[in-house]
Amino acid sequence: MSASTLPQGQQLAVRWYPPAYDIRVEHVAIPKIEHPDDVIVKIKLAGLCGSDLHVYRGHEDVDEPLICGHEFVGEVIELGESFHPGATDRPSLYSTLKIGDKVVAPFTISCGECHFCRIGFTCRCIHSLLFGIPILPGGQAQYVRVPKAGGTLFPIQGPMTQISDTSLILLGDILPTGIFAALQALQHPKLQPTATSVSYPFSGWTPIASPVTTSLQPQDREITLAVVGLGPVGICATVSLLDMLSRAAYSFKVVAIDPNESRRSKMQAVYSAIDEKDRGNGTFAVASIEESKKLVADWTEGIGCNAVLEIVGNNSALTLAYDLVRPFGLISSVGVHQAPPLPFTGRDCYNKNVSFDFGRCPVRALFPIALDLLFRRQDVFGGVGEEKSLVDRIVGFDKAKEMYEVFDKGGCGKVLFDPWM
Amino acid sequence: MSASTLPQGQQLAVRWYPPAYDIRVEHVAIPKIEHPDDVIVKIKLAGLCGSDLHVYRGHEDVDEPLICGHEFVGEVIELGESFHPGATDRPSLYSTLKIGDKVVAPFTISCGECHFCRIGFTCRCIHSLLFGIPILPGGQAQYVRVPKAGGTLFPIQGPMTQISDTSLILLGDILPTGIFAALQALQHPKLQPTATSVSYPFSGWTPIASPVTTSLQPQDREITLAVVGLGPVGICATVSLLDMLSRAAYSFKVVAIDPNESRRSKMQAVYSAIDEKDRGNGTFAVASIEESKKLVADWTEGIGCNAVLEIVGNNSALTLAYDLVRPFGLISSVGVHQAPPLPFTGRDCYNKNVSFDFGRCPVRALFPIALDLLFRRQDVFGGVGEEKSLVDRIVGFDKAKEMYEVFDKGGCGKVLFDPWM
Repeated sequence: MSASTLPQGQQLAVRWYPPAYDIRVEHVAIPKIEHPDDVIVKIKLAGLCGSDLHVYRGHEDVDEPLICGHEFVGEVIELGESFHPGATDRPSLYSTLKIGDKVVAPFTISCGECHFCRIGFTCRCIHSLLFGIPILPGGQAQYVRVPKAGGTLFPIQGPMTQISDTSLILLGDILPTGIFAALQALQHPKLQPTATSVSYPFSGWTPIASPVTTSLQPQDREITLAVVGLGPVGICATVSLLDMLSRAAYSFKVVAIDPNESRRSKMQAVYSAIDEKDRGNGTFAVASIEESKKLVADWTEGIGCNAVLEIVGNNSALTLAYDLVRPFGLISSVGVHQAPPLPFTGRDCYNKNVSFDFGRCPVRALFPIALDLLFRRQDVFGGVGEEKSLVDRIVGFDKAKEMYEVFDKGGCGKVLFDPWM
Repeated sequence: MSASTLPQGQQLAVRWYPPAYDIRVEHVAIPKIEHPDDVIVKIKLAGLCGSDLHVYRGHEDVDEPLICGHEFVGEVIELGESFHPGATDRPSLYSTLKIGDKVVAPFTISCGECHFCRIGFTCRCIHSLLFGIPILPGGQAQYVRVPKAGGTLFPIQGPMTQISDTSLILLGDILPTGIFAALQALQHPKLQPTATSVSYPFSGWTPIASPVTTSLQPQDREITLAVVGLGPVGICATVSLLDMLSRAAYSFKVVAIDPNESRRSKMQAVYSAIDEKDRGNGTFAVASIEESKKLVADWTEGIGCNAVLEIVGNNSALTLAYDLVRPFGLISSVGVHQAPPLPFTGRDCYNKNVSFDFGRCPVRALFPIALDLLFRRQDVFGGVGEEKSLVDRIVGFDKAKEMYEVFDKGGCGKVLFDPWM
């Protein structure tokens, strides 16, 4: 069935049926504006993401059919009343979004108006909903309804229009999540002495006595970091981290770790695609778990990493992160963790003065940084189907059922759907 | 037995004997310089701290006698060779510490020269040792040997000499630990939008697109904080926190929480001793656990605290902290945790975007801030035996056995020993 043969008002969509492993491409009604803050987006490309597999496998406790997908690039074709001229008492995008705008969205909606949106922690918006659940149909369709669209959607304008659509799709989830993991590390106070040469407790307080520790030595300013997990998010985290370290002119050592050889090869190919002048003043290595422990010990005389980025979401990864991190170090955990208790005792945490930042990426707030990186790193993110590419292939919905099966078995990399192919 | 009747070269000291509850005041050899970096300090006052009870009760797995105590104020009476004229290639204190200096020390030694000391994380000095263990006799004696004294000791000079000895004793552990708990919260990036009006991801990165979230509202800048546990450290944490909030002119709400009514009364008395002009632009309340949950919900429309200071060191306190903290909030945990696993699943941490800072206070690095606070807050910290006082009484070593017994049963507040009384 192709788009041209659909009855009027109908579209094609990839739907999942409970209990599991049941993907059907069906024609369903084209979504309509339901609320003044809604926008209808015509989809250009939609991504198949690792976390779609949680639903696919029946792990998400859902018992009704849904339209899948939470990564998409598209074009605004219909605006709710809030976007009409005169509605000026709302955040700027409610008055500036226009028909024809090319847009991306985070994997969850965010209103742009609540406390959490205002302060930039957009993934905890009080209206937060994930695309691809029964009450919010996802982006693996020809059209999608976007609630709170003035806060959620981001228009691709100016120089950003030079960015390929196949890489814009990375904005929905994986690239900002990688950036988030890296930013949490580099912005944490425990890394500040290394980054700034100012020792703890830093400045801003006005004691009557001056600090008496000695001056920092050059070796105190070298930052050692590890990335645990080299799936697509882990690769994005590593590229982001290297970019930030390079641009901030830090002296660094970074090890990117995965037990899976093919993932390590992909990481190495991506790194090789980065122009040498953009690699910064540091050392980079890709390693297995055992290799990484030896490497970090050698690099740091046994002290450990300043921070470890944990991109997996299970207790093995957290335990490795703990083993690799130094006293007064940080574990930046963006992996989506499940029901098991954390694998640490209180004493483990006390004795190592360890810090943790857990949780979901505020994707919407990181779009500007992610776009900037995408723009500059098209050498890495621009292609499809190459050895270095994060995107493996682009297919039509006719291949959707097959692609879910192959992706579920690890038989391909990231798949994009072109709903009009 | 009094000091004047001791044989030459002997001193009085409070010694603990295994397996538990066995305190004896004995005469032992006056310590000698054993290493060029050592200094001998004549003790003026020594503190009895809650953590001395871990040893007292036999919980620390020690099987030989030891001299107790890790809080003391004293005077330098003998210097190792490193402090003699000409030893100039060492941190400044190795050349400036003099016979006759009045000094305080953190509860662990720190060399001032290793990576951790240089960057200010002094409690993880590679030479770190706790006073009051078999190989490092403690401060409940007439004299104590201080290793790595150029990094460890801090001379009390200039206006600081106006600070009472009974409050200087708080520098050894509890006041810096309280300050540490508060600083970790106020310095954490997740509190920055509230503190600075700059939304996440803050500045310092140069995206090609500008952020599009709306401006912050006044209510976004109000900081809501909780302190869990009102023992002496919790009271110090609360006083420090209120002082920092007030001096930084933040708009704040703070609740200080303890299930124990007498601890709440002490906290209230301490707060009442703070001059009204120094209380800042905020609201302060002392509450039981149940009261605190209701209060925080009312104050924040159910969102929760920006940060919770956990000063207890058990899983009930951590669980309460989790319940009180908002999404993208911080738990600053300085409680000394033991063997139980943390009471959180990975999903708990992911779903709330919670951050944790665990661990021991770098006391030595915080002396300047602590001295500044002690100096300005003598109204709170200056007295002994008053309703508001953290120090309950000063006794001679003849009362040591009895005081350990009474303190162990919660029958008195903080006790100081005057070894010459």
